[in-house]
Amino acid sequence: MELEESTVSSETIYKGKIINVEKLIVQLPNGKLTTREVVRHPGAAMVVPITDDGYVIMVRQFRKPVEKVCLEMPAGKLDEGEEPAECARRELEEETGYRAGKIEHIISIDTSPGFSDEVIHIYVATGLTGGESKPDNDEFLEIEKVKISDLIKLIYQGNINDAKTIIGAFIAEKYVRGLP
Amino acid sequence: MELEESTVSSETIYKGKIINVEKLIVQLPNGKLTTREVVRHPGAAMVVPITDDGYVIMVRQFRKPVEKVCLEMPAGKLDEGEEPAECARRELEEETGYRAGKIEHIISIDTSPGFSDEVIHIYVATGLTGGESKPDNDEFLEIEKVKISDLIKLIYQGNINDAKTIIGAFIAEKYVRGLP
Repeated sequence: MELEESTVSSETIYKGKIINVEKLIVQLPNGKLTTREVVRHPGAAMVVPITDDGYVIMVRQFRKPVEKVCLEMPAGKLDEGEEPAECARRELEEETGYRAGKIEHIISIDTSPGFSDEVIHIYVATGLTGGESKPDNDEFLEIEKVKISDLIKLIYQGNINDAKTIIGAFIAEKYVRGLP
Repeated sequence: MELEESTVSSETIYKGKIINVEKLIVQLPNGKLTTREVVRHPGAAMVVPITDDGYVIMVRQFRKPVEKVCLEMPAGKLDEGEEPAECARRELEEETGYRAGKIEHIISIDTSPGFSDEVIHIYVATGLTGGESKPDNDEFLEIEKVKISDLIKLIYQGNINDAKTIIGAFIAEKYVRGLP
């Protein structure tokens, strides 16, 4: 079956600090026209920082869109022209103070492909050293070490809701078991 | 540490078909003011439809924001006033034709808490019957049965990128093993 939609026209609705919003007119496989709203995002990198004794270094921060404090793995937006692996190392150090001895790309995820092009590149960091955080000015966060064996419990109890962090937890669990 | 940000003012930038965009001025814990861009979304439900013989019923559809055909688990937006479990049953039947004998809420996820309030409620559906899909007019999708044991491979090979579907795959894997 033909599934692709071709772009007939696009209009920028909003140019923001972090996101841009576009309204597209697209042609469906049956020839009909419809609109698509697309939130453009620069992309991001997330780190699953695994300590030698089986913990993950996490951060608690307030997320205005969901109006709550979220327990997440360290992550941040790509600077212009920045390589994802470089962004991962930078965000790990800025947010937690830890430096990665080794950093490995695992997968890249589309967070909301129905309305946004945001991609998050996920890395596992090991051989961690340091631990004195240097957050950006006006970035408020708390660091928390969580045992990998507790992460899945926290997810199923509803205490971790952030999609990228949930994926990071499953990755950490498999990583320390040598899977897949 | 104080982490919360209070809203000083909000302005609607865009009212769309599916999303609205707001620009907020917030007060940081240190008293300074800054802006936050928030994409409001009605929320959605996703189903992990597990067959008795260890497959998951999935759909392939084109996603304009990421310009590719994605392999996903059945999902859709909540209609106004609709209960998430009802939405899950409806989307399963509309997209795949299957009816759920049993539907269980597992977790709810925030897809992009940095810029959006989208929540996806995730259900496991079992006791599946039927299988004649009735997609919405102008909804183009293909159904694919994937062995649960192949899902994790597809993720690590980079062939499944959708965040909610990756979480659904890990949930399916644990569900059939009776974990956690």
